[in-house]
Amino acid sequence: MREGMDIACLLLLSVEKDRHVFSCVGYAASSATAPLEAITFERRDCGPRDVQIDIAYCGVCHSDIHTVRSEWGPSFYPCVPGHEIIGRVVQTGGDVTRFKKGDLVGVGCMVNSCRHCHSCEAGLEQYCDALPTWTYNSPDPAFPKEGAHTYGGYSRSIVVDDHFVLRVPENLDPAAAAPLLCAGITTWSPLAHWKVGKGHRVGVVGLGGLGHMAVKFAVALGAEVTLFTTSPNKVEDGKRLGAHRVVISRDAEAMQAEANRFDFILDAVSAEHDVNEYLGLLRQDGHMVLVGLPEKPMSVGAFTLVGKRRSLAGSAIGGIQETQEMLDFCGKHNITADIEMIKMDQINVAYERVLRSDVKYRFVIDMASLPETA
Amino acid sequence: MREGMDIACLLLLSVEKDRHVFSCVGYAASSATAPLEAITFERRDCGPRDVQIDIAYCGVCHSDIHTVRSEWGPSFYPCVPGHEIIGRVVQTGGDVTRFKKGDLVGVGCMVNSCRHCHSCEAGLEQYCDALPTWTYNSPDPAFPKEGAHTYGGYSRSIVVDDHFVLRVPENLDPAAAAPLLCAGITTWSPLAHWKVGKGHRVGVVGLGGLGHMAVKFAVALGAEVTLFTTSPNKVEDGKRLGAHRVVISRDAEAMQAEANRFDFILDAVSAEHDVNEYLGLLRQDGHMVLVGLPEKPMSVGAFTLVGKRRSLAGSAIGGIQETQEMLDFCGKHNITADIEMIKMDQINVAYERVLRSDVKYRFVIDMASLPETA
Repeated sequence: MREGMDIACLLLLSVEKDRHVFSCVGYAASSATAPLEAITFERRDCGPRDVQIDIAYCGVCHSDIHTVRSEWGPSFYPCVPGHEIIGRVVQTGGDVTRFKKGDLVGVGCMVNSCRHCHSCEAGLEQYCDALPTWTYNSPDPAFPKEGAHTYGGYSRSIVVDDHFVLRVPENLDPAAAAPLLCAGITTWSPLAHWKVGKGHRVGVVGLGGLGHMAVKFAVALGAEVTLFTTSPNKVEDGKRLGAHRVVISRDAEAMQAEANRFDFILDAVSAEHDVNEYLGLLRQDGHMVLVGLPEKPMSVGAFTLVGKRRSLAGSAIGGIQETQEMLDFCGKHNITADIEMIKMDQINVAYERVLRSDVKYRFVIDMASLPETA
Repeated sequence: MREGMDIACLLLLSVEKDRHVFSCVGYAASSATAPLEAITFERRDCGPRDVQIDIAYCGVCHSDIHTVRSEWGPSFYPCVPGHEIIGRVVQTGGDVTRFKKGDLVGVGCMVNSCRHCHSCEAGLEQYCDALPTWTYNSPDPAFPKEGAHTYGGYSRSIVVDDHFVLRVPENLDPAAAAPLLCAGITTWSPLAHWKVGKGHRVGVVGLGGLGHMAVKFAVALGAEVTLFTTSPNKVEDGKRLGAHRVVISRDAEAMQAEANRFDFILDAVSAEHDVNEYLGLLRQDGHMVLVGLPEKPMSVGAFTLVGKRRSLAGSAIGGIQETQEMLDFCGKHNITADIEMIKMDQINVAYERVLRSDVKYRFVIDMASLPETA
């Protein structure tokens, strides 16, 4: 079945080679208010430094919903989202030495960047001064026609510069590894940057796609991990995931008892919430790092920061090098996401469930369920 | 004249020695709405680990005004403010080895702390888990009567545990050194903690008592220093103080041109202001540190923090060890504050001028002008 479709792609490739593009099937929104449905769109041919990947699984991130609905500013349409991509290499360009056909690989939120600014040279392409080329909904200078934008992983295949392709350990369940490419690296990067490990008391705020990965990583890194959740019915699951302690954040007395306790708090909540409640739980020189993106500005009290030299920082996904380090760590410790697999045509229902936080803890699309033609 | 008063103090000491206290003249507010005027109050006798200091100069800090007016919560009255104290040792307890009569010394914002918590053991007594004993308006467990509170430096003399007494280099103008004990250490501590130095681009927001010290320190530490001020008439003064660049923060175009430029920004503004304007000027991994204390919570955009892994932190005064390091640095580099000297009975007028930012850049009271009796 999958092989049949690969042949179909190759046939299209052959027909359209004068345009240096080929046709690909994906799932897209045609406007901010339209549901996602199957479309055919163009991808660039595999160039000398490119890797062409047959996509097996793609995770569903809340950012996908924000973007297809133009909630972070006007998006490009048709909009094919998806940046938690796992697949097998089907073709490599002549200059590519790190990958070969059949390799299990991943693609996350970025497919290119300027490669020479301070951030890129530090291996932190997500902070590229010129902005990275995001995996979807980003102007695409690598496409052989003007005015193109990138299309994401809700699709048959993708062509990516080899620098932005990650090696996925073969011992991991490839479907459950998909969310590592965004939810995973987004929580790993700050834990690694702030050197979280043994002897540290770490708080994780919110048990969703990001939060559940943060709990797994912080535990594996040797920290004492406390999960903060609004939902008493998540206590058991928090402990199952490895959290040593769970605090119900709506219990004012329980929160008060945690004051000045934490070296590091990772805040994975995107909904509006009072960050001061958590800042006060940091000890002297403690860091609280936002990985969620509340739309409205947060209200932050200066006294809480000044009183114990606390800091509030933000962190965005992670660089390519640290994404590879995370994947290698996951291979070693057998860490993947807790997922619920869906078929491609269930995506619109899945979005509604994501918005209700009704998923434990990430939807992953089985891309074999993508129709052969749109 | 001063010697005459010392004799008067000794006579009182002798009369009241059964109570282990002596009478001292100072300037105090009797309520949140009263002007400051001369009073007589009691200080404890010099104990075995104490240093008794004849106060020569005392700086005027905005905190003094907040406290005498109960703007940070209800204060104790009578309230004798003042925590930028410079004087000479007149007596030392039997266990004191570090100081002797005649030494030029300083006392800052703290006169004691628990001495055994994590912060105290790290030499950061200002973050003491049990809260330090502040130099004024703080419950005073060291006083030989129940329910006492501390009295600050607008007074003839002070008795302080030797751990909280600083050695002041004799080459410094003692009056101009007084503000180092609060405005100085408050700006020095974050510059030292975040290791500001050569090759760093540093922004200082606000040219007041704190800001002018931050400019002097950051320049002396070898950074490229940009002053941000709302006042075009402060440009020249900013450069005189050593700033390499001055940006008028009300000029939106000039501010835009500074985006992603700074390694470190020290925000010394206590008035309400938009911190996001400055956060966006930080480069990747840049830190912005608040040393002012705006009363209302600040509005902080998550995207600005997340987009470049920026952080917003706070910092409070400084520990005793780093205060001594700062004073030694000042001695070596001949750094003091720019001051305007006043007599004690000018204090109420001076307060009004502080509130109008009409001082370059710190008032210092010549304590020789304190009346002999209240």
